[in-house]
Amino acid sequence: MTLPPDAAAQLQDLLGSRLSVSTADRDHHAQSESFHRAPPPDAVAWPESADEVAAIVRICADAGLPVIPWGAGTSLEGHALATQGGVTVDLGRMNRVVEIRAEDMQVTVQPGITREALNTELRATGLFFPVDPGANASLGGMAATRCSGTTAVRYGTMRDNVLGLQVVLADGRIIRTGTRAAKSSAGYDLTGLFVGSEGTLGIVTELTLRLHGQPEEVAAAVCAFDSLEHAVECVSATIQSGIPMARIEFVDAVTARAFNLHSGSDMRESPHLMVEFHGSPGAVREDAERFGEIAAEFGAQGFDWATTAEDRNRLWRMRHGAYHACIALRPGATGVVTDVCVPMSHLPAAVAAAAADIRESGLIGPIVGHVGDGNFHAQILVEPGNQTEIATAKAIALRMAERALKVGGTITGEHGIGIGKRALMADEHGQAWQVMGAIKTALDPQNIMNPGKLVPDRN
Amino acid sequence: MTLPPDAAAQLQDLLGSRLSVSTADRDHHAQSESFHRAPPPDAVAWPESADEVAAIVRICADAGLPVIPWGAGTSLEGHALATQGGVTVDLGRMNRVVEIRAEDMQVTVQPGITREALNTELRATGLFFPVDPGANASLGGMAATRCSGTTAVRYGTMRDNVLGLQVVLADGRIIRTGTRAAKSSAGYDLTGLFVGSEGTLGIVTELTLRLHGQPEEVAAAVCAFDSLEHAVECVSATIQSGIPMARIEFVDAVTARAFNLHSGSDMRESPHLMVEFHGSPGAVREDAERFGEIAAEFGAQGFDWATTAEDRNRLWRMRHGAYHACIALRPGATGVVTDVCVPMSHLPAAVAAAAADIRESGLIGPIVGHVGDGNFHAQILVEPGNQTEIATAKAIALRMAERALKVGGTITGEHGIGIGKRALMADEHGQAWQVMGAIKTALDPQNIMNPGKLVPDRN
Ligand SMILES: Cc1cc2nc3c(=O)[nH]c(=O)nc-3n(C[C@H](O)[C@H](O)[C@H](O)COP(=O)(O)OP(=O)(O)OC[C@H]3O[C@@H](n4cnc5c(N)ncnc54)[C@H](O)[C@@H]3O)c2cc1C
Ligand SMILES: Cc1cc2nc3c(=O)[nH]c(=O)nc-3n(C[C@H](O)[C@H](O)[C@H](O)COP(=O)(O)OP(=O)(O)OC[C@H]3O[C@@H](n4cnc5c(N)ncnc54)[C@H](O)[C@@H]3O)c2cc1C
Repeated sequence: MTLPPDAAAQLQDLLGSRLSVSTADRDHHAQSESFHRAPPPDAVAWPESADEVAAIVRICADAGLPVIPWGAGTSLEGHALATQGGVTVDLGRMNRVVEIRAEDMQVTVQPGITREALNTELRATGLFFPVDPGANASLGGMAATRCSGTTAVRYGTMRDNVLGLQVVLADGRIIRTGTRAAKSSAGYDLTGLFVGSEGTLGIVTELTLRLHGQPEEVAAAVCAFDSLEHAVECVSATIQSGIPMARIEFVDAVTARAFNLHSGSDMRESPHLMVEFHGSPGAVREDAERFGEIAAEFGAQGFDWATTAEDRNRLWRMRHGAYHACIALRPGATGVVTDVCVPMSHLPAAVAAAAADIRESGLIGPIVGHVGDGNFHAQILVEPGNQTEIATAKAIALRMAERALKVGGTITGEHGIGIGKRALMADEHGQAWQVMGAIKTALDPQNIMNPGKLVPDRN
Repeated sequence: MTLPPDAAAQLQDLLGSRLSVSTADRDHHAQSESFHRAPPPDAVAWPESADEVAAIVRICADAGLPVIPWGAGTSLEGHALATQGGVTVDLGRMNRVVEIRAEDMQVTVQPGITREALNTELRATGLFFPVDPGANASLGGMAATRCSGTTAVRYGTMRDNVLGLQVVLADGRIIRTGTRAAKSSAGYDLTGLFVGSEGTLGIVTELTLRLHGQPEEVAAAVCAFDSLEHAVECVSATIQSGIPMARIEFVDAVTARAFNLHSGSDMRESPHLMVEFHGSPGAVREDAERFGEIAAEFGAQGFDWATTAEDRNRLWRMRHGAYHACIALRPGATGVVTDVCVPMSHLPAAVAAAAADIRESGLIGPIVGHVGDGNFHAQILVEPGNQTEIATAKAIALRMAERALKVGGTITGEHGIGIGKRALMADEHGQAWQVMGAIKTALDPQNIMNPGKLVPDRN
């Protein structure tokens, strides 16, 4: 498909060289970190302001063209693919810090700034933005997927850390949601509605974020367990004890092997927990001791404390590299990444059942998890294009999701729906999925905003 | 107005004596804790199940009758008044704990249970529900107003502590939102949308709530300051220092006097902070010491520590009784209660400006606040029906709201919109208020759910 000539001319006038219909640019925006594939968009636009975004949306609305926001393209369920063609709006050039308000512990940013760039800019303030999906995602994409990561157990997800947004709606109107106050009861929580809406309700052009003080003291450690069950039961016990963990991450024996092979570590090939404590020196000492006692009850061994900032950075770089380290266990493979989240008491059984399914399948499927939230991922390694393997992996993923739903959990703790999980939405939400559709129709009657994602098809 | 005979007969069949058109019952549901007044509803219904709620809503939908949910009737902006007649649905009989899942730190409740009853039922579990609006409100009403209170600085508001809902929609459909998982990225955050929707989108018939462990150690104290500015600046400094305050409440000199007169306290008549610390014994000691140091910098004096549970209960009972203690400063008066919330750095100026306005007006207007969130209330005492005084009080409230908006704050931190704040919604939200209206129209096309509240009038 190509752009209608009128729309193409208008976009060209507006953006000049910041509109591209080149194969290279379009193909780049047809890539995804996942196994999902779709044809490229008809064009890619790089706006530099909210007004330009609004103008693009208006042109597309007139022409009935899909508009697909693009942050850093790291989402795992094909969220940003142009499955119905249209214009991909790459926010990468809108990547500035607009204003740091240190005394209010807030920052306002453009959507294209990445997590790492933001924290670099914040370094001198003594503050940081905690949400940490591992990948160097954009803040706009992070909000749009309601992402989280290793620190959510302490600092919450994007839901908890976005105070307000500027959004361009499907008709080109620019609105602001939320305020700079810590809380508000002034009407419907539109900020919360746009966070997690995956570009289907509008394009985020500015975010006001809650910041947190860099902890006075940080301690991190890794320890080994005899079995997956013991490791995960240790997590439940720790969370119930109320120790304010800053991070508590599970990695299984296969992942430990991947770390050893590809990240230069020297872990025993057994399940591990990686933990971090933030606070005053006294609190961190006390928390670490109490955790050590609980872990000992579950047979934890080989505690390895990362005392210097350097050691800690190495530890978490390794954890964040798990995806790529695991891929390297089967060179050329791609990962079918699962993402269920269950109530804490069901976590041990859920992880064990997933592990059993994977073992039985014969595929390699390392398991890691932000287990303090009851959230874990199996990354099932498949040969790209091998339909049998992909089907096997998808079947495992489906069983994981079904088991999660059975115990009141969710089909996605943090990655979102995109195209990969859409078929499961009715199972999780029942009639409430139709309510999501009604909201989408109200805000985007023409269905141009990232169509084909998240909500039900219209009849 | 009276009920259309058909609808009346159907409701009667459904509910028997749990439908009332008596003047007493209707008048009871025309009362409000605030100065707002409205005619009574045409009838009051007391359903006992979600199915009955759905049946009521369907009958009203067929007849085009307004449906107004009623929890405990403690809201302060006329939220639950039947301004356009119709049927008030009193959830008071749906007041059971459905299920406590202690290992998941969750509870599922019916909407009519009150905060105090819930915490009584939880006592044996070692867990508690922290959101605490002072009044003994219903959990359904608390969710519907997105309320908070003294503990929000540590435990968050209803937004943070409601995991999932069962809701009867305007067409009688019953949906479930959210899951029992700690987090989810599965589509639009409908839970967040219904929390704070003030009964305009549906009736909450069940809530799943996040619980918290009763802290191992608790310490509370009250201390005096020379000036309002010093007290409030102390709060900013404390929050920025990252001390995890469980409560940090401001009361001004007038409120201290009211406490002395009516709660048997013996405070000096100057501004005070009331604080509480939760945690392990070591952490509480450390936090209390650090707070003491900061407070000393701002000239805090007369630290009075409540060490026993009994002393602490007395302290917080007194704080929660502030509204009534202050009313008693002018017997027979009613309070025009304001509720702005501002970014922390603007708090000292905002409180000082409000105090100056009140002083100038000649009215009595004690100021208290959940200042750890930047949220404070002036309770301006007026003679009921005295239009001059009410106008003066409203003008002060308006100036407070305008000043809050000017610094990026909100017109209501926790009380909500009801009828009292509706005229300010466009000022706070601009075009986004229209978006709220579009959502309302999508979910309640007939406009029967608590009409005339929160969203713009339809054209
Ligand atoms: C190795 C690896 C590890 C990961 N680990 C985690 C993890 O631990 N936790 C986690 O939550 N996720 C994780 N992810 C997934 C991914 O990083 C997150 O989903 C991230 O939030 C995506 O951000 P992005 O900027 O790349 O968004 P994109 O992929 O560009 O877009 C994602 C969605 O958001 C929309 N969007 C993007 N920008 C905007 C905008 N400005 N306005 C409106 N909509 C917009 C897009 O249309 C799309 O629907 C991981 C990914 C990888 C590759
Ligand atoms: C002395 C005093 C002190 C207060 N202090 C605080 C405070 O510190 N913080 C604070 O936040 N608030 C405070 N409030 C206000 C009040 O307690 C809260 O707004 C509370 O949340 C109202 O709950 P309720 O059950 O009384 O609701 P109601 O007044 O009965 O109803 C409030 C709104 O919710 C709707 N509603 C009620 N139940 C449902 C349901 N099941 N489904 C859908 N909608 C429903 C109603 O239609 C109405 O719009 C105070 C009030 C008083 C009188």
